[in-house]
Amino acid sequence: MIIDCHGQYTTTPDPHQEFRDAQLAQLEDPGLPEPKPAAISDDAIRESIEANQLKLLRERGADMTIFSPKASGMAHHEGDEATSRAWARACNDLIHRAVGLFPDHFFGVCQLPQSPGVPIKNSIEELERCVNELGFVGCNLNPDPSGGHWTSMPLTDRSWYPFFEKMVELDVPAMIHVSASCNPNFHATGAHYINADTTAFMQFVQGNLFEDFPDLRFVILHGGGAVPYHWGRYRGLADRLKRPPLPEHVMRNVFFDTCVYHQAGIDLLFRVIDIDNILFGSEMVGAVRGVDPETGFHFDDTKRYIDALDIPETNKRKMFELNARRVYPRLDAFLKARGK
Amino acid sequence: MIIDCHGQYTTTPDPHQEFRDAQLAQLEDPGLPEPKPAAISDDAIRESIEANQLKLLRERGADMTIFSPKASGMAHHEGDEATSRAWARACNDLIHRAVGLFPDHFFGVCQLPQSPGVPIKNSIEELERCVNELGFVGCNLNPDPSGGHWTSMPLTDRSWYPFFEKMVELDVPAMIHVSASCNPNFHATGAHYINADTTAFMQFVQGNLFEDFPDLRFVILHGGGAVPYHWGRYRGLADRLKRPPLPEHVMRNVFFDTCVYHQAGIDLLFRVIDIDNILFGSEMVGAVRGVDPETGFHFDDTKRYIDALDIPETNKRKMFELNARRVYPRLDAFLKARGK
Repeated sequence: MIIDCHGQYTTTPDPHQEFRDAQLAQLEDPGLPEPKPAAISDDAIRESIEANQLKLLRERGADMTIFSPKASGMAHHEGDEATSRAWARACNDLIHRAVGLFPDHFFGVCQLPQSPGVPIKNSIEELERCVNELGFVGCNLNPDPSGGHWTSMPLTDRSWYPFFEKMVELDVPAMIHVSASCNPNFHATGAHYINADTTAFMQFVQGNLFEDFPDLRFVILHGGGAVPYHWGRYRGLADRLKRPPLPEHVMRNVFFDTCVYHQAGIDLLFRVIDIDNILFGSEMVGAVRGVDPETGFHFDDTKRYIDALDIPETNKRKMFELNARRVYPRLDAFLKARGK
Repeated sequence: MIIDCHGQYTTTPDPHQEFRDAQLAQLEDPGLPEPKPAAISDDAIRESIEANQLKLLRERGADMTIFSPKASGMAHHEGDEATSRAWARACNDLIHRAVGLFPDHFFGVCQLPQSPGVPIKNSIEELERCVNELGFVGCNLNPDPSGGHWTSMPLTDRSWYPFFEKMVELDVPAMIHVSASCNPNFHATGAHYINADTTAFMQFVQGNLFEDFPDLRFVILHGGGAVPYHWGRYRGLADRLKRPPLPEHVMRNVFFDTCVYHQAGIDLLFRVIDIDNILFGSEMVGAVRGVDPETGFHFDDTKRYIDALDIPETNKRKMFELNARRVYPRLDAFLKARGK
């Protein structure tokens, strides 16, 4: 079984974005009526997925996708808490419907109603709704709701703890994922995403978060940002900061996906990171959609790079399936209930 | 000949830091007297270098170092323009003296008197002084003088152009290097440095800076941040942004050093980046000073990883010497004048 841990609903039917546009327009002009989430037919959802994520899933040989709202669309920096709450709810409801239409292929991960300066504990309610009522298996957590100004506290700060307690209680992991950048220094998918991955990891190295939360689990996407390439730097910094070695200090709780879009990068990832910490992912349909002229295949067809690795089948199975079932126990339970 | 392009005077005699401390104290309490740069003897400078950078240079088998003030000490976010001007001048004067004491082993690169919100053209005077009067061969350019708040414009913005014009006129490159982080999200050497490298590269991908400045040259340190690991992502993003392929769009003007502290990372760097774009560097004595328990050698002894590469001697010579002489023509001229 092949589980893609990093899929996003980037191809939603137009009325969904029109709702968002109306929401932002109303922020500009409070005299406008309060917009309501769009009415979208099952057929429109089906079409938007069959022609995209499901088609690619089949073509590339994966079985299912852990599916979240479009990360760059979360845009927690827009508007206020009410804006984010309405938008997160609409996005999550749409994921829930998509999952319901393709229950064999998609499992939901939710967007949170984060907003700059708003305590993260205010996101607990939506997490509980998504997990307990909608059957989601995890969440996307934005370490920088300001969209590139980095005005909140590091993930190791105690202000995040109420949310982490709830994650542990619900037994769901968080994927660390920033959203669009409103800072002109940071291109969203080319700088902000990768920087955030690197930043979060280094926060975990500096802190002692997993002493307080031994069962907390994070997936750092995009192959762990810069971390595997600079693995020696992080091992050396942990030592200099008098932290335990990374395998026990961070890597019991942190996992990287395989969203690295060339063979040399994937080779490095598997060379330096323990196989138990790697989850298959493709970010499909995401930031880099083109065909690599050097290979003739899509940049984000990450399974091809993995297929080219000379590693034991038992390791491939961990990375394609078993690790995801371990990191997402609710996914595992759903699969077991179906005899899988 | 082996030239280390990334050395820093991190071991300055104590009175130098005491001057800085007095400067910061006076910012807090303007009633204090205006401090003056410390009186430091030649012997104190000699000792601070002989026991550190020069010792390591000899032990590790390099011949010379392109030497700058301590990057984390620049701290452009402290005080105002006058603070940065006095501090940069003191740091550069000390580099000049160190270079004068060890002319066969060190060449100077200057710190700039950047300050948040202050136009970069105000740094031209110090660049000219260092290059024309002190014989420096390049500069360190901070893309984020705010120290982790990223309040300035991207390097491709026209506000940087007057400085770039002067760099081209003087025929000196800039090493892109942020300084200490005053944003609690970013550990300086573990996140802020690497993020800045990645960010600068993506700014170059997005923009068209090198159409306007075909002779402008930047060295992106720390192995190019996350870029080589995500080389496929950057090739794909260039394509998606309808930019020319990276070799012609960016890599005629941008170079990466070898400050990557493990064998797998160095292997990746040399596998994906053209040999003409790699400059030997070790960041010595820098962020990661310890001994790697896995190898028994210092993490930042980067020459060992390179020695282990199976690449032609002609390529090693490019990376150890010829590329540095091409990127730093003033260094090349100094060496030629000495018959080297």
